Amino acid sequence: MTVADETGAAEPPAVPHPGPAAGPPERRPGEADPAAEQGTGRDAILRAARRAFALRPYADVTMRGIAADAGVSPSLIVKRFGSKEHLFNTVADFGPAADELFAAEPAGLGRHLVLTTVRMRREQRGDPLLRVVFSLGNEDERTLLRERFRHQVTERLAASLPGPDAELRAELIAGQLLGLGATLSLHRPGAGDRATPERLADLYAPGLQRLIDGD
Amino acid sequence: MTVADETGAAEPPAVPHPGPAAGPPERRPGEADPAAEQGTGRDAILRAARRAFALRPYADVTMRGIAADAGVSPSLIVKRFGSKEHLFNTVADFGPAADELFAAEPAGLGRHLVLTTVRMRREQRGDPLLRVVFSLGNEDERTLLRERFRHQVTERLAASLPGPDAELRAELIAGQLLGLGATLSLHRPGAGDRATPERLADLYAPGLQRLIDGD
Repeated sequence: MTVADETGAAEPPAVPHPGPAAGPPERRPGEADPAAEQGTGRDAILRAARRAFALRPYADVTMRGIAADAGVSPSLIVKRFGSKEHLFNTVADFGPAADELFAAEPAGLGRHLVLTTVRMRREQRGDPLLRVVFSLGNEDERTLLRERFRHQVTERLAASLPGPDAELRAELIAGQLLGLGATLSLHRPGAGDRATPERLADLYAPGLQRLIDGD
Repeated sequence: MTVADETGAAEPPAVPHPGPAAGPPERRPGEADPAAEQGTGRDAILRAARRAFALRPYADVTMRGIAADAGVSPSLIVKRFGSKEHLFNTVADFGPAADELFAAEPAGLGRHLVLTTVRMRREQRGDPLLRVVFSLGNEDERTLLRERFRHQVTERLAASLPGPDAELRAELIAGQLLGLGATLSLHRPGAGDRATPERLADLYAPGLQRLIDGD
């Protein structure tokens, strides 16, 4: 198990392979072979970036280090992602995961949240939200990750909840989702690992739904 | 907020201050002043050890580094805690926290779990269980932390649960507790921060209790 596996968020689809009309990109002497990087480079960079930002203070993360970990040239990262800040913002984006998680009517949202979390974990070998827990306890720029989580996940959810104490209930719903991911990662192999998504939803969704309904 | 704040487990009481009959401990030239270390040394060492084991691979943690962080001499750590392995096992002990968390009859356990988690967080400035999430995604000796969590928390809980799927339900209960700690740490300041323990229990305990009851 690697940090990348644990912390992978939902990713937008990889950049499509360019057709023959696109022509080969310009290549400088000493650069890594673009043809070799084309297929896997983007995913490898994102994985390496998540690992780097999860394990080290923001200030200690270097594009060179990410490039070495990803097996690509530093210039390829700059070309595809721009600055370190931009790369951080790319891997710290909970928006696509939130789009999938919250795509259900309130009456069925609890079950949808469990099924979507489990599906994303199993299909993408990464949890959509769990990455944020690695930022707990750090004073450095990784507070950006927490801010973004609050904005993209908790506040968005709170705005959609009817009833009293929406902010508090949204925090607790987010907590149950983080807890589901944490326990599935922690107990591996384990009973949660072997359970069907439907069985997990039967057990775990009612508590979520109660917080969603707020009564 | 520091990692130590986040990850502090319940600690046994500090070693009592020795009375006059105990006599002063032997002191070698160049050692830190034992009188200065007496009151705060043990807690400082435990905090530094938790921080070190949470942030670095086990193999990279040194007694010298922990000593420097704690502001004590390396020899004091060896005298009080023995080897690095022993120190790790001390800070990785979820037993005292589990004793407090599980000290309730099944019918009221959900509420007791929430109230105890919130009380331990507020009184001790640390979460009783959350530390284990920092071990996720690591291949190194910190797997010991996960093994201990499974044994001291999840398996102990599973053994006490009536009804079917006790192992799975215990994993999900542990998940909800980890999620509660994670969300309270993440949203700080936040609504969960400001809520009374009783209000948090009103909202969060029913989902836990349903998993405890298993029906």
